[in-house]
Amino acid sequence: MKKKVVLAYSGGLDTSFCCIYLTRDLGLEVHSVIVNTGGFSDEELKAVEKRAFEMGVTSHHVVDETKNFYDSCVRYLIYGNVLKNNTYPLSVSAERVSQATAIANYVKEIGAEYVAHGSTGAGNDQVRFDMIFNILIPNVEILTPIRDLKLSREEEIEYLKKHGVEMNFEKAKYSINKGIWGTSVGGKETLTSNLGLPEEAWPTPVTETEARNLELVFEKGELVGIDSESYDHPAKAIQALQAIAQPYGIGRDIHVGDTIIGIKGRVGFEAAAPVLIIKAHHTLEKHVLTKWQLTWKDQLSTFYGNWLHEGQFHDPVMRNIEAFLDDTQQYVSGKVFVQLLPYRFQVVGIESAHDLMSNKFGSYGEMNNSWSGDDVKGFSKIFGNQVMIYHKVNTPNPPAP
Amino acid sequence: MKKKVVLAYSGGLDTSFCCIYLTRDLGLEVHSVIVNTGGFSDEELKAVEKRAFEMGVTSHHVVDETKNFYDSCVRYLIYGNVLKNNTYPLSVSAERVSQATAIANYVKEIGAEYVAHGSTGAGNDQVRFDMIFNILIPNVEILTPIRDLKLSREEEIEYLKKHGVEMNFEKAKYSINKGIWGTSVGGKETLTSNLGLPEEAWPTPVTETEARNLELVFEKGELVGIDSESYDHPAKAIQALQAIAQPYGIGRDIHVGDTIIGIKGRVGFEAAAPVLIIKAHHTLEKHVLTKWQLTWKDQLSTFYGNWLHEGQFHDPVMRNIEAFLDDTQQYVSGKVFVQLLPYRFQVVGIESAHDLMSNKFGSYGEMNNSWSGDDVKGFSKIFGNQVMIYHKVNTPNPPAP
Amino acid sequence: MKKKVVLAYSGGLDTSFCCIYLTRDLGLEVHSVIVNTGGFSDEELKAVEKRAFEMGVTSHHVVDETKNFYDSCVRYLIYGNVLKNNTYPLSVSAERVSQATAIANYVKEIGAEYVAHGSTGAGNDQVRFDMIFNILIPNVEILTPIRDLKLSREEEIEYLKKHGVEMNFEKAKYSINKGIWGTSVGGKETLTSNLGLPEEAWPTPVTETEARNLELVFEKGELVGIDSESYDHPAKAIQALQAIAQPYGIGRDIHVGDTIIGIKGRVGFEAAAPVLIIKAHHTLEKHVLTKWQLTWKDQLSTFYGNWLHEGQFHDPVMRNIEAFLDDTQQYVSGKVFVQLLPYRFQVVGIESAHDLMSNKFGSYGEMNNSWSGDDVKGFSKIFGNQVMIYHKVNTPNPPAP
Amino acid sequence: MKKKVVLAYSGGLDTSFCCIYLTRDLGLEVHSVIVNTGGFSDEELKAVEKRAFEMGVTSHHVVDETKNFYDSCVRYLIYGNVLKNNTYPLSVSAERVSQATAIANYVKEIGAEYVAHGSTGAGNDQVRFDMIFNILIPNVEILTPIRDLKLSREEEIEYLKKHGVEMNFEKAKYSINKGIWGTSVGGKETLTSNLGLPEEAWPTPVTETEARNLELVFEKGELVGIDSESYDHPAKAIQALQAIAQPYGIGRDIHVGDTIIGIKGRVGFEAAAPVLIIKAHHTLEKHVLTKWQLTWKDQLSTFYGNWLHEGQFHDPVMRNIEAFLDDTQQYVSGKVFVQLLPYRFQVVGIESAHDLMSNKFGSYGEMNNSWSGDDVKGFSKIFGNQVMIYHKVNTPNPPAP
Repeated sequence: MKKKVVLAYSGGLDTSFCCIYLTRDLGLEVHSVIVNTGGFSDEELKAVEKRAFEMGVTSHHVVDETKNFYDSCVRYLIYGNVLKNNTYPLSVSAERVSQATAIANYVKEIGAEYVAHGSTGAGNDQVRFDMIFNILIPNVEILTPIRDLKLSREEEIEYLKKHGVEMNFEKAKYSINKGIWGTSVGGKETLTSNLGLPEEAWPTPVTETEARNLELVFEKGELVGIDSESYDHPAKAIQALQAIAQPYGIGRDIHVGDTIIGIKGRVGFEAAAPVLIIKAHHTLEKHVLTKWQLTWKDQLSTFYGNWLHEGQFHDPVMRNIEAFLDDTQQYVSGKVFVQLLPYRFQVVGIESAHDLMSNKFGSYGEMNNSWSGDDVKGFSKIFGNQVMIYHKVNTPNPPAP
Repeated sequence: MKKKVVLAYSGGLDTSFCCIYLTRDLGLEVHSVIVNTGGFSDEELKAVEKRAFEMGVTSHHVVDETKNFYDSCVRYLIYGNVLKNNTYPLSVSAERVSQATAIANYVKEIGAEYVAHGSTGAGNDQVRFDMIFNILIPNVEILTPIRDLKLSREEEIEYLKKHGVEMNFEKAKYSINKGIWGTSVGGKETLTSNLGLPEEAWPTPVTETEARNLELVFEKGELVGIDSESYDHPAKAIQALQAIAQPYGIGRDIHVGDTIIGIKGRVGFEAAAPVLIIKAHHTLEKHVLTKWQLTWKDQLSTFYGNWLHEGQFHDPVMRNIEAFLDDTQQYVSGKVFVQLLPYRFQVVGIESAHDLMSNKFGSYGEMNNSWSGDDVKGFSKIFGNQVMIYHKVNTPNPPAP
Repeated sequence: MKKKVVLAYSGGLDTSFCCIYLTRDLGLEVHSVIVNTGGFSDEELKAVEKRAFEMGVTSHHVVDETKNFYDSCVRYLIYGNVLKNNTYPLSVSAERVSQATAIANYVKEIGAEYVAHGSTGAGNDQVRFDMIFNILIPNVEILTPIRDLKLSREEEIEYLKKHGVEMNFEKAKYSINKGIWGTSVGGKETLTSNLGLPEEAWPTPVTETEARNLELVFEKGELVGIDSESYDHPAKAIQALQAIAQPYGIGRDIHVGDTIIGIKGRVGFEAAAPVLIIKAHHTLEKHVLTKWQLTWKDQLSTFYGNWLHEGQFHDPVMRNIEAFLDDTQQYVSGKVFVQLLPYRFQVVGIESAHDLMSNKFGSYGEMNNSWSGDDVKGFSKIFGNQVMIYHKVNTPNPPAP
Repeated sequence: MKKKVVLAYSGGLDTSFCCIYLTRDLGLEVHSVIVNTGGFSDEELKAVEKRAFEMGVTSHHVVDETKNFYDSCVRYLIYGNVLKNNTYPLSVSAERVSQATAIANYVKEIGAEYVAHGSTGAGNDQVRFDMIFNILIPNVEILTPIRDLKLSREEEIEYLKKHGVEMNFEKAKYSINKGIWGTSVGGKETLTSNLGLPEEAWPTPVTETEARNLELVFEKGELVGIDSESYDHPAKAIQALQAIAQPYGIGRDIHVGDTIIGIKGRVGFEAAAPVLIIKAHHTLEKHVLTKWQLTWKDQLSTFYGNWLHEGQFHDPVMRNIEAFLDDTQQYVSGKVFVQLLPYRFQVVGIESAHDLMSNKFGSYGEMNNSWSGDDVKGFSKIFGNQVMIYHKVNTPNPPAP
């Protein structure tokens, strides 16, 4: 009886090669699986399935992780206002972890002896897949034909042709990866340090030219409504916002950062909804959270994003941080007013029952009733007490007069 | 013989009131001083001086702190990419500390018995002035007539008229504060949580409509050139960049954050040069610094910015952090390519002899020569070792198969 | 009708003075209250009550906060292994917050118009009391006769004698404060920087001379048993351990640190149970938590302790951190073996079902089965990749040979 | 012509095996090197040299890194009060990095084609050696016969005997590693989680029984004198202190922590001087540094220690942190009074011209002149302002009365 291998299958050249290779050369029974984190349409998923069976898989399975991905991960990226290196909403990084986890669960479900992925030896994804499989299914052997065989694109095509596979072998100019938390765009310019992406590289053309005002409604940190529309799950609100905002060209940028394997990498992304939601959510938080809540959220979230990026989602410290973040969102409810404009947006202001900026307690720059000038005078004296002492002790000639 | 008071004088209603009040009611000899941190033109400074003498000051002194402010403070805000709450370059906060320090030094220089400032009881500036005076000139008494007397604007005007002062008593719609590190705009809408500032509130109208590409040249973290132009001091490069970029409407935003006295405050700002420089500098750093340099710079700089905002510049920990930041800038040299557009800009890319993103060491997403697929496989195994063990130990039913 | 004041009453000179002063000079109806956080015996509480009525209070109330203090605060100090400045278990700091909160609640309960405490103007407690009252009962006026009147000890005694009060006016050589989380000892030597406390200053004499081995049983981070004894509430386990260990002279030390008001302060303490529990708990955690759990626990707990010390227990960030800490304790269960010796102790080892140090996964220094030498070789290469690149890029003459 | 290999040689079984194996089986010219970081006596070094030549090395080289190790690393462990997991002075971890660096430099010096070390596949040292060689001499191939061949102790002995080597093949009960910054003790009990080390396991017997008072003299953070004795280099002061204090049994403990490869490891150590110096230095710092200096030193030093432990000494972030630490030590000068006792010590107090705890500025718990009760009242109000507002805004029923 043939041994089973679960193959993470995207329908592209590399994973198609894996399909044939695992079946013909290794004699395995291939069960292909594709995990949708919100980026695939039904048509796309059907096309991938069709292709999988053309490659001779024994079974093909689609896991829709969109809601689960939101619930277990994206949610915390919003709570934490996570933008890696102050720029990138971790569109792909987060998604891969979710996909690897779903695949590991599927491996357990069908009792496969092997799991295979099509990563090359130079990116982050290989580490994420390898590591998560090592953690969740430590007894299952991982197969990585592309990385191990180091074939060139041409050699892969020749191999496939030899095995009678017919597909469009033309290479896309840019490699695109789409999910609910943004779309990445890599290739050509992103392989240099000095060039930006040209207009045609971006998947979504800019078609909106008129300013548009939106009300984003948050409840305990989650986006639950846009203008008068409510959504039964925040993942739907995100997708609705994305449909509205991406045609403005909002949320396009290039991220440069550290890969898990120590080299620097650069990738373009368009992520209108993620960037809008994070900036709106952050503004709301600045109104409703205390100074130290903001400070510690920032520190923990930065780590959370970096550690997630490095594929370490299953470290229990991530659960601990999520418990912290959950607890901070109790009062992060209200409306955020944003204005969409071509290629940019503004967060105009917020409205919340929990707004700590209220005339009742004294306005910034205006006189107030809760405290007196003398109170502030006393505060200033005590607040500077230690540094005053420090300078007195350590100044050779004590200050004049 | 009359006792001397040094008065921080801006030429406005509040400090003009202080002038008369200190002279007539308290019988002091008033020595007015104004500290320029790059925001005043010679004409403006002359007008203030003229007004000071009209108010009967015994002497008037102008301190030009622009370069010194840059050298002792702004420089570190650039090294640290400091944007408070991810938004605000601390335009006013930083400046006040510089001004208070310069005034304290002037008090020592002329041996005054008192120092006076015109702050009200509701903002950050009172704390910054009080505290820095307490620290640097602890034996000098601080006078704050506006805060102590709690006069209304009308009462102040009446008092001045009674003492024969004639000046334009009309209140500006927005209160503007200009320095080398940005211009703040407060009033009306910024006193609410939900309204943005209208176009006319911004001091610099948007007159540029065509995209423009710039090369910003950095040397050890400092902006030393723009395109082919070099500057003998970075403060001049900042001012030149500001002149080019502010007419694009770049760097306009509203900051909402925590005041030192615990209330939330909101302020508009336009700061084209600061925002451009910080974003360009940060991008350069992402290419030339290691992951942990970026991480720790971020943590220390966030604190540096917050503590500066709270007026604690003279805490020796600030010197320690500056030593850290200085040391990180050794290789932060190169060109950053930016594109200016109306209301926005893009950092296009960088060029640096210290760029760690180099094909020589393996490209992100491409195969490489310095390490093998097996190396990464080993890395992934060890990198996930502890979490694998954790799950094995703590999973009731060990993972299948 | 007289207005009501709630007075934090300890039975000592200062608060006895307050009693008389509030009644006679201010004409208030005094309701004294004492909050027990585990340091008072029934006899002591009765003596205080007797004294209160002798001072003419209208009512006297005892609040037993021991369990509540443990549940809401001490518990987190254990989870966080909190030793301020690496030394002090925050014995008094934590207690004061609990007491002030209990008093504020009592003020609300009886609808008093005033609340009074006997703090002087030079310590931490005044800030803790003032601030917590401002936060929890902002409309209740705070009276602080001792701080306001600045009376000397002699003047207070004279005043009391004048009003017919007879009590032992002799000053104790050391000021002692006892609670479930330790006993502080202040006076004489602690007012200097260079002297230690003499043997007679410590409240509990060292009477044990023989080594004794103990098993401390933890469940989800809490001490639930000692040797074969179980306790229905961890507060009882703490008290039992304290009774066993304090006669060994364990947990005696002097803490020097920053007061809330900016000066440095020094205080002795004996805290056998707190120190033993924290060290035992920490050792257990080192075995069952991951590296990053330990790292982040450390950072958050250090802040938690400092912020608690500064009286900021009611900042919601403290609840957020508690949520984090709670979540980390899921597997912190097991036995810790300690040995008590005169003036010192040793944590010998631990035993836990969640111990991550297990031969099954490879022993430190011994060969193993889960990974190969090649895996580590690959790990080392990738783990050092970025720094290798950094040195290659930035070394003028590339390394030989 | 034979190719050269530099071998890190200790004289033990593993590295003796390497010697023969590299010469006979691989046909290399072996140049052995031993790096002394303060733990070897001249006799020991001579014995190792003799053995090396018996093994047939072409040359043998001794590098004395004691002072350099102190200057480039130990110094910062003192400035940072580094105790890993609050316990372990990083005795071995720090030393290995110094040794690997010295060996890499020697490889460059003699132009060797290979470098070899005798690490097994289960500890930290292999990663430290591999990584530092990869970083500093990336083109030199690393040979690790012990790790690669996975020979048992018996097989190694047999191999050596077969090649005519005669030495004492008896295994020591504990593996001991000695350097200037402490001695580690591993084996038997340290391989379990629950057992402590027996008295005979500790290299230095406890022979001192009488209490002894010492004055430790620090200058800018470095130990420069003991009682009336001065030392021309701090490394000598450390060694002198070690000679005095280790016979008391001070600084013995067991560290349990995370290895670089993800497993937990446990190791005993005796480190009287390191522990005494760190505790004394820390106490001095608590008197002379500001609150935030202490806070940030703590965070940066914890990272510094952990990253050093993981062998990442050559990450430039380490230089940046050292710049920070250097800057903090400006005023860390003075005397620290300690008392040595069998198995323990006490830090009694300090004396410093930079002590911020001074009666001149107000004593803790005593009245003062620099500020008033009203100042503190104002401070308390403003310090608690935000949390007061938070509770007012978010409390359903506003606080009574």
